[in-house]
Amino acid sequence: MADIGVLHGPNLNLLGIREPGVYGTLTMVEIDRRIVEAAGKDHTVETFQSNHEGELIDKLHEWREWAQGVLFNPGAYTHTSVALRDAIAAVELPVVEVHLSNVHAREAFRHTSLTAPVCLGQISGFGADSYLLGLTGLLRYLSSNESK
Amino acid sequence: MADIGVLHGPNLNLLGIREPGVYGTLTMVEIDRRIVEAAGKDHTVETFQSNHEGELIDKLHEWREWAQGVLFNPGAYTHTSVALRDAIAAVELPVVEVHLSNVHAREAFRHTSLTAPVCLGQISGFGADSYLLGLTGLLRYLSSNESK
Amino acid sequence: MADIGVLHGPNLNLLGIREPGVYGTLTMVEIDRRIVEAAGKDHTVETFQSNHEGELIDKLHEWREWAQGVLFNPGAYTHTSVALRDAIAAVELPVVEVHLSNVHAREAFRHTSLTAPVCLGQISGFGADSYLLGLTGLLRYLSSNESK
Amino acid sequence: MADIGVLHGPNLNLLGIREPGVYGTLTMVEIDRRIVEAAGKDHTVETFQSNHEGELIDKLHEWREWAQGVLFNPGAYTHTSVALRDAIAAVELPVVEVHLSNVHAREAFRHTSLTAPVCLGQISGFGADSYLLGLTGLLRYLSSNESK
Amino acid sequence: MADIGVLHGPNLNLLGIREPGVYGTLTMVEIDRRIVEAAGKDHTVETFQSNHEGELIDKLHEWREWAQGVLFNPGAYTHTSVALRDAIAAVELPVVEVHLSNVHAREAFRHTSLTAPVCLGQISGFGADSYLLGLTGLLRYLSSNESK
Amino acid sequence: MADIGVLHGPNLNLLGIREPGVYGTLTMVEIDRRIVEAAGKDHTVETFQSNHEGELIDKLHEWREWAQGVLFNPGAYTHTSVALRDAIAAVELPVVEVHLSNVHAREAFRHTSLTAPVCLGQISGFGADSYLLGLTGLLRYLSSNESK
Amino acid sequence: MADIGVLHGPNLNLLGIREPGVYGTLTMVEIDRRIVEAAGKDHTVETFQSNHEGELIDKLHEWREWAQGVLFNPGAYTHTSVALRDAIAAVELPVVEVHLSNVHAREAFRHTSLTAPVCLGQISGFGADSYLLGLTGLLRYLSSNESK
Amino acid sequence: MADIGVLHGPNLNLLGIREPGVYGTLTMVEIDRRIVEAAGKDHTVETFQSNHEGELIDKLHEWREWAQGVLFNPGAYTHTSVALRDAIAAVELPVVEVHLSNVHAREAFRHTSLTAPVCLGQISGFGADSYLLGLTGLLRYLSSNESK
Amino acid sequence: MADIGVLHGPNLNLLGIREPGVYGTLTMVEIDRRIVEAAGKDHTVETFQSNHEGELIDKLHEWREWAQGVLFNPGAYTHTSVALRDAIAAVELPVVEVHLSNVHAREAFRHTSLTAPVCLGQISGFGADSYLLGLTGLLRYLSSNESK
Amino acid sequence: MADIGVLHGPNLNLLGIREPGVYGTLTMVEIDRRIVEAAGKDHTVETFQSNHEGELIDKLHEWREWAQGVLFNPGAYTHTSVALRDAIAAVELPVVEVHLSNVHAREAFRHTSLTAPVCLGQISGFGADSYLLGLTGLLRYLSSNESK
Amino acid sequence: MADIGVLHGPNLNLLGIREPGVYGTLTMVEIDRRIVEAAGKDHTVETFQSNHEGELIDKLHEWREWAQGVLFNPGAYTHTSVALRDAIAAVELPVVEVHLSNVHAREAFRHTSLTAPVCLGQISGFGADSYLLGLTGLLRYLSSNESK
Amino acid sequence: MADIGVLHGPNLNLLGIREPGVYGTLTMVEIDRRIVEAAGKDHTVETFQSNHEGELIDKLHEWREWAQGVLFNPGAYTHTSVALRDAIAAVELPVVEVHLSNVHAREAFRHTSLTAPVCLGQISGFGADSYLLGLTGLLRYLSSNESK
Repeated sequence: MADIGVLHGPNLNLLGIREPGVYGTLTMVEIDRRIVEAAGKDHTVETFQSNHEGELIDKLHEWREWAQGVLFNPGAYTHTSVALRDAIAAVELPVVEVHLSNVHAREAFRHTSLTAPVCLGQISGFGADSYLLGLTGLLRYLSSNESK
Repeated sequence: MADIGVLHGPNLNLLGIREPGVYGTLTMVEIDRRIVEAAGKDHTVETFQSNHEGELIDKLHEWREWAQGVLFNPGAYTHTSVALRDAIAAVELPVVEVHLSNVHAREAFRHTSLTAPVCLGQISGFGADSYLLGLTGLLRYLSSNESK
Repeated sequence: MADIGVLHGPNLNLLGIREPGVYGTLTMVEIDRRIVEAAGKDHTVETFQSNHEGELIDKLHEWREWAQGVLFNPGAYTHTSVALRDAIAAVELPVVEVHLSNVHAREAFRHTSLTAPVCLGQISGFGADSYLLGLTGLLRYLSSNESK
Repeated sequence: MADIGVLHGPNLNLLGIREPGVYGTLTMVEIDRRIVEAAGKDHTVETFQSNHEGELIDKLHEWREWAQGVLFNPGAYTHTSVALRDAIAAVELPVVEVHLSNVHAREAFRHTSLTAPVCLGQISGFGADSYLLGLTGLLRYLSSNESK
Repeated sequence: MADIGVLHGPNLNLLGIREPGVYGTLTMVEIDRRIVEAAGKDHTVETFQSNHEGELIDKLHEWREWAQGVLFNPGAYTHTSVALRDAIAAVELPVVEVHLSNVHAREAFRHTSLTAPVCLGQISGFGADSYLLGLTGLLRYLSSNESK
Repeated sequence: MADIGVLHGPNLNLLGIREPGVYGTLTMVEIDRRIVEAAGKDHTVETFQSNHEGELIDKLHEWREWAQGVLFNPGAYTHTSVALRDAIAAVELPVVEVHLSNVHAREAFRHTSLTAPVCLGQISGFGADSYLLGLTGLLRYLSSNESK
Repeated sequence: MADIGVLHGPNLNLLGIREPGVYGTLTMVEIDRRIVEAAGKDHTVETFQSNHEGELIDKLHEWREWAQGVLFNPGAYTHTSVALRDAIAAVELPVVEVHLSNVHAREAFRHTSLTAPVCLGQISGFGADSYLLGLTGLLRYLSSNESK
Repeated sequence: MADIGVLHGPNLNLLGIREPGVYGTLTMVEIDRRIVEAAGKDHTVETFQSNHEGELIDKLHEWREWAQGVLFNPGAYTHTSVALRDAIAAVELPVVEVHLSNVHAREAFRHTSLTAPVCLGQISGFGADSYLLGLTGLLRYLSSNESK
Repeated sequence: MADIGVLHGPNLNLLGIREPGVYGTLTMVEIDRRIVEAAGKDHTVETFQSNHEGELIDKLHEWREWAQGVLFNPGAYTHTSVALRDAIAAVELPVVEVHLSNVHAREAFRHTSLTAPVCLGQISGFGADSYLLGLTGLLRYLSSNESK
Repeated sequence: MADIGVLHGPNLNLLGIREPGVYGTLTMVEIDRRIVEAAGKDHTVETFQSNHEGELIDKLHEWREWAQGVLFNPGAYTHTSVALRDAIAAVELPVVEVHLSNVHAREAFRHTSLTAPVCLGQISGFGADSYLLGLTGLLRYLSSNESK
Repeated sequence: MADIGVLHGPNLNLLGIREPGVYGTLTMVEIDRRIVEAAGKDHTVETFQSNHEGELIDKLHEWREWAQGVLFNPGAYTHTSVALRDAIAAVELPVVEVHLSNVHAREAFRHTSLTAPVCLGQISGFGADSYLLGLTGLLRYLSSNESK
Repeated sequence: MADIGVLHGPNLNLLGIREPGVYGTLTMVEIDRRIVEAAGKDHTVETFQSNHEGELIDKLHEWREWAQGVLFNPGAYTHTSVALRDAIAAVELPVVEVHLSNVHAREAFRHTSLTAPVCLGQISGFGADSYLLGLTGLLRYLSSNESK
């Protein structure tokens, strides 16, 4: 049984509202609902979105005391934030980096992730399913570590 | 008749106060007053300044529902913020990027703009007039599109 | 119901045999067994490993006629093979790139993937679970596309 | 009251003729007419187009004795001509660089301007209006300097 | 039946005169004669050489109204001229880039072509035959397009 | 007698709590206490920590009116924030950049400081003593300038 | 009278089958037929395709004893294979590099050819005609050398 | 007493046959004979050459169970093969990289070795003697380790 | 007794007229007069200035038949013109590159000369004396070669 | 109680003599006097200056047996000497790198330090006080280590 | 019978004294003894170590008159000294570059050798045996050249 | 009447002795004799050569008190020595950088000069005459400054 934090970075609050042809019609609220559903009764899920780099860092610090793992879509901060990288390293939790789109198929500046090197793993390109696959991967990691 | 948001990025609140020999004696408040005056009675103008990347993103999101166009001086975030670039693209509004100084004549890291590629256009080097030229360009763009 | 090809690139035949402390004690055969088990009776799985870039290309070409999707761990060829990239694009199948380790946390030359830009998505860092998460993602993608 | 030179670089003579869907149906002659109209009776405007780097330099030298300011669309020479950069610096006139398209949204080699660092300012992305905004900016600059 | 322009860039007027051991003893006049001969009676050929980037652009503009295709050896401007690249794109004619020598076997700065990306194709390394092969390729392209 | 602001950047609030084997057992509160103690009765010290780039800029702006100098550990923002660089330049106060660890011995992206070029000086590698050495250097600078 | 080897690199076996809208409806077999036809009775042609870098090297070595020249489309290996470059240099035969598409108009990593510097020449962008033009160029080269 | 594998990479099968003025008149067979002779009766030597990256990997894997050390001339794959690098690391044997020519005196792309960082050492520039020196170095390493 | 061509590149016609504080009060005409005077009666000097790259190439071609050597200040074309480099190489005359200012002490893009590698030598930083020193060096070179 | 070596690199012997407006009027002798004074009776200080990279290495080797720590201003060798970096690492003493000026505010080639990564820490920008702050930092480090 | 110079670069005088766990317990004196022993009575060996780039150059110049070949471990100067490269080229002796450690497995700046391109060959990674293998290689080279 | 120091850098002591076919048969002693002769009775000349970077710096420092100007051929240190650059700047004398060969026509690493930006000017490519032209340029500079 695990406490899992789900962190959404900048501009993800607009999901499902803008350009549904590109990003799908799922809203962030609906994605959060699916994650909670997938986590089931055995796990507690808290979700948080912010466009502020500082608030994302604050939340990671706060979850340091509470969560056993974090699902994180850092959005654009993936490519520019050393501060979030340091925060992930500092909280000493397994963090799974997820992306809706296949970042490797987009502009060159999106091919480099400053945060992934301090994460457990990275999943990109499966739309909302990136979160659900990340949750599965994180829970399996936690349960296999637990049993050691 | 258009609703126009005017967004000032980091450190622009100090305009007219610090180094008047370099940046002129016009304060941000006075620049805002001139923009409102230039917009005249036919257009509504709202202005906002923040040193916080996240607040600038929040405001763009908020204006998404209200404005027909945005004048934006991203200041230093021009060169470092993929998150603001994504926000401009997400709100699907015409945004005009303006700079007081001629950024091309300054340090090499100011020659690259992460935000300009998703803007309508860019104006730099005319001091406070950069805003006023940007306003004119934006209103002409809106009225020519309207008539189509 | 889908036919899924599972492709393992160079040196993966040594899994579970060499350095079990680093790569775990799971052999490639055991990973293949788990994938087949996870696919269940509804799906057919064929697996193939080769250290030869050319054989991996040949197999992708062969599966073009048979499979609905491919799980691919290109190993070291991820970072050097334009020919495999072209093969993935040519077969016009959804391909999921998987990596056992978190490639973003290793040497700089492993941070760039030549193959990922033409794949559906990429999963790295979950050990053998990277394959199983990739299978789930691929099957969900196929079933959601099917229903369209 | 000012004498203003308007300089058009390579390929701009084809404006309005080729690809009207992309560049609009305005010809260079029509743009020149609008600039003259906008300048009004108080200002004299001379316009010149050439595909020859050397002729553009010659014209700048010639205007050195006559003009108070120059509107310049260097076209492709923006990105390759140190000689034009040196000419702009040598004539010691305020020069405003204008571009019809948003050069920052095009190929990477168009993001760097060799000429902008020695200009008063740069305007890009407003189509023919880039010239008119540039004219306004230049005249305001001249009149504010005059009054000093 | 097609009208074909043949354009020779800088220093090609010295062909056959200087360093015959290196460039062969064929003069540009003789190469032009062979092209006309190869074109035969069914096609009209006009040839032009200039050391001036601007004159080469002017000629391309002029041929825009007359030619169905162009053979172009841009010489050194291949590697430095964005203006010629824009001119080729602007005239909307199929242009075949040819080089006498194998440019890929020379100095590194000759490995990059600014003009080739907007041409139909590129041929290098066959001496005067590069022109004749280019002519054949161009005529075949025109006749296959015609028949569509 | 001087008023000194002490600014701590992102993740420094976790000092002494996380990884004491690496960063020592001193908390940020204890470091602040030592700085105040070292400053003695002759000087006033105010301290501030934030994970928000914008709040750090706001605080620098606020101290512009009050402080004679600033001790600043920008943490990860050292390497990514042009906005903080501009804020330091704008407040026209002597700022001393300090780092607990020897940043030159860490990842390559930590070897470049965007903020140091506009600071008085930089001190790194002495743990909590970096702050105390910085305070001494700052006070000596202020008193030597005062006496001029 | 010459013996000519025609070598097709990776993925070219799929020509005419996949994406006929892009690559045309000609199959590799049909291209080979046209080459043989164009060579006529005076010349012997042998053709070979492989997705294996090693088999392409082996074939070049084998042809070293038999052929007078080689037409080679190295496909993706053009940009990554030093081994093929060394093989071309080692067999000391004139090799003409051909490409169906205009490689200079595609992704940046396709602009550099490792093999072209040791070839006689390069032809790209004429579709299947690239091979036929290459054959003509190669035969002319051989016959002019012969007559020396 | 040791079992030593000797691995020759691409194009080395042509040694002594092509360009004897450059590479000497020694064939690969003769080099192999000299290595066996130098190894003497105390050591077993097996030699293998292939132009196929995959076969070289396969052979390294095979020798993993049999050899105590490997002499390897990866030829052109030295500069392009991450897969061979990974294979060398995976087999956990001491591997000595040898080159006939002084690779540091040739083209820039031959100055970087992807394989050397996971080898015991590298020897280049002594012609066939590079192999013999490498054998001596490898045997001394094995015997000094043995005695520990 | 030698015929010497003196070639002045772009913007040098403004010498002595603009910014005399920087470039001195010597006009190009006066520099030419001094060169003629220094050459004395034993040598013939012809001088030419143009802002057109093409005219400079044409003049070099023309002097190919007449001159024994050339003094050349390519100005800004030093850093951008491969065509002038090729022209210098083609005319097979000793050319001495001269610069009034010390180009190595100016912007980074002026530190690279495309023309110098095919010249006899380069002299920079002595103002008008750069020409006179170049003349002396050129004449000594010619007379020492003559005596061979 | 500690023995401290103070090492001054190239050109520092001219301190106080040349450009006192820039570097201050303090001579190196006077700086040495202040360091000795600051060290007090409890510590022994030896100082040494040389313009020779080799002599600086020799002195570090010599102090290896005598000193407990070193203050080192490597001057220009900071940016070019791998040999001094290796010497610092070899002597296994805590070395504090000091610079009079803020090297981060000077030319780009002074922003990289080859020596700092193997030092305890770095202090720059405080003039002669950089040495005194470095001494304090070094003595505190030694005394805190001693007490462990 | 040959005269061989053995040159040791910076910091090698500390061999065997510092960090014996890393560099082994062999001193430079002992390595020299082994080289002399290996050279036997047929060859004369002179050895020299210096931390001074200039002294190493002087010694190479001196040996120019005396030696038939040189064994050289340039240490850190391998990566920074163009002067030593020029000295090696100037003395026109066969020089073998040796390194104790595998430089290709260390920091990136140690992967480039300025001196190796003008040496006969390079050997790295065999500890003290690198010298002995180098001696063998050098003597074989000399005796095979002698016999020509 | 001026005192002129002539400084020769590394390996120049071998001039005229090694490779006379390349560097000419003039020895450094003979070049010095010619410089003294050219200086005539009105000027005093002192010459100095060293292979030691440190001795060249020492000599520049010494001449600071005595010379009015310096002729300096820094040889290989041109491209690697920041310390010599700082020494030239520190002695505040006009220094003319000279090179026997045309450094711009040699390896790429010789195209960059660290010392030239702080010199009066640079002369390269005239053999021993580079020194004599440099002397003339230096004396003219001194006499024109004197007369001011």
